[in-house]
Amino acid sequence: MSLERFSLNQATVRYASLPEAVRVTVDAGIPSIGLWREPVAEFGLRASAKLVAASGLRVSTLCRGGFFTHQDGPARAAALDENRRAIEEAAALGAPALVLVVGGLPEGSRDLVGARARVVDALAVLAPDAAAAGVVLAIEALHPMYVSDRAVVSTLGQALDIAEQFAATEVGVVVDTFHVWWDPDLAAQVARAGRGGRIASYQVCDWVTPIATDPLLSRGYPGTGHIDFASFTRLVVEAGYLGAIEMEIFRQEVWDDEPAAVARHAAATFEQFVAPSLP
Amino acid sequence: MSLERFSLNQATVRYASLPEAVRVTVDAGIPSIGLWREPVAEFGLRASAKLVAASGLRVSTLCRGGFFTHQDGPARAAALDENRRAIEEAAALGAPALVLVVGGLPEGSRDLVGARARVVDALAVLAPDAAAAGVVLAIEALHPMYVSDRAVVSTLGQALDIAEQFAATEVGVVVDTFHVWWDPDLAAQVARAGRGGRIASYQVCDWVTPIATDPLLSRGYPGTGHIDFASFTRLVVEAGYLGAIEMEIFRQEVWDDEPAAVARHAAATFEQFVAPSLP
Repeated sequence: MSLERFSLNQATVRYASLPEAVRVTVDAGIPSIGLWREPVAEFGLRASAKLVAASGLRVSTLCRGGFFTHQDGPARAAALDENRRAIEEAAALGAPALVLVVGGLPEGSRDLVGARARVVDALAVLAPDAAAAGVVLAIEALHPMYVSDRAVVSTLGQALDIAEQFAATEVGVVVDTFHVWWDPDLAAQVARAGRGGRIASYQVCDWVTPIATDPLLSRGYPGTGHIDFASFTRLVVEAGYLGAIEMEIFRQEVWDDEPAAVARHAAATFEQFVAPSLP
Repeated sequence: MSLERFSLNQATVRYASLPEAVRVTVDAGIPSIGLWREPVAEFGLRASAKLVAASGLRVSTLCRGGFFTHQDGPARAAALDENRRAIEEAAALGAPALVLVVGGLPEGSRDLVGARARVVDALAVLAPDAAAAGVVLAIEALHPMYVSDRAVVSTLGQALDIAEQFAATEVGVVVDTFHVWWDPDLAAQVARAGRGGRIASYQVCDWVTPIATDPLLSRGYPGTGHIDFASFTRLVVEAGYLGAIEMEIFRQEVWDDEPAAVARHAAATFEQFVAPSLP
């Protein structure tokens, strides 16, 4: 069945509660879901884990940890504690990976090199917790337009340079089409990620222009933008990735639509643009 | 004198005519100007060349050629002709380099790899003309957020991979802080560009957040955003670049200001943020 590898990331139905997100995902015939910490917390961690397990859905990832680029001090300590909680939550929910958005430049800082070094430092602190919990820390390279405010990790190659300092069971990477499709080194880096067993998640959504006024919301369903999902997905297949393929769309019109309709449309675009390139 | 290396790019005073742009540049004590084809055409090529020469200003670059990623056909032929005219204009104005924004994906295409290959093809056609005119074709890597609509060349490394297929007297690169500051491979690529004598222009302007509604206009004076101009400029100095340093700011508030005030403020921010890192 062509939705076998598909997972709906909960952010795509942002205004749905956890039970509603689970229900529309099941109803659309989607076998897997990517969860977010906030709606899980709202419904309760134990209740969420129970509900999802009873639904029969697999959990592909938990979003998200990270935001740990601070200099030494209370903010950094708090961020590390928050990440430890996120790791525990991922384990409780049965998510094999915790997605990390590493954080941007600290307020007032212009030191990208230093912020990047602190990402490695934070992972060194957290990796043993992740290993103990059986959760992979999945570094997500974000599009370079978010470098100052959200993620100082901007390319797949850079994410791998960091991940490879740790065991593949501890630190991996997310391959998100929206963030990395522009990269002239994409094919080589996806292959490298596959060889090392580092692909913790493959996420699909399109790059839609003009860029939205809030650039976070410039994503769209596959087929509505500029990305060639067939050739991109072939790279990921050739890299040996066998896991779930999530669709995560931040877009106001999508959020304003009925969650059930969004889940069905997401499944349809997956079948049209992604599934044909799978083995 | 600390403005010795400074050049005001004409786009920073976008609404000024060529004579006004020249006048405010001279009056601000700036020794060099980066010209744009449209205001030059409006005033007339010969009249512009004469006026600029009489002003004593050096011309650092002419903006811009490129936009030649089309498939074979009339649009491609027209683009190549347009670039030949731009090369001639650069020579007539005494500009050592023609800045190239290579173009995005052709309408309806999702083939980034193909579009990139056509950039090399177009340069192979134009390089002899550039060599004959004594003008360097300067590939500008644009920020990856412009990949679909403006430039399929997104990193300095990629620009160099292309430029190095030609003689350094024919094809070079622009290093623009706004476009490449995020690149984790920046230091290595600036050094590589310097070693090969490929830096045709160094352009400075800041990355200001939040990103403007029109993302083309998200630039600002040095000091108003997130870029560390001291460390960036040291990379360019260590790479051996001895040419002009242009300030090119696309920003509505800057354009709405008095051109004379803009030229003075540009000079002041150059002296504050860039000049101290020069030898």
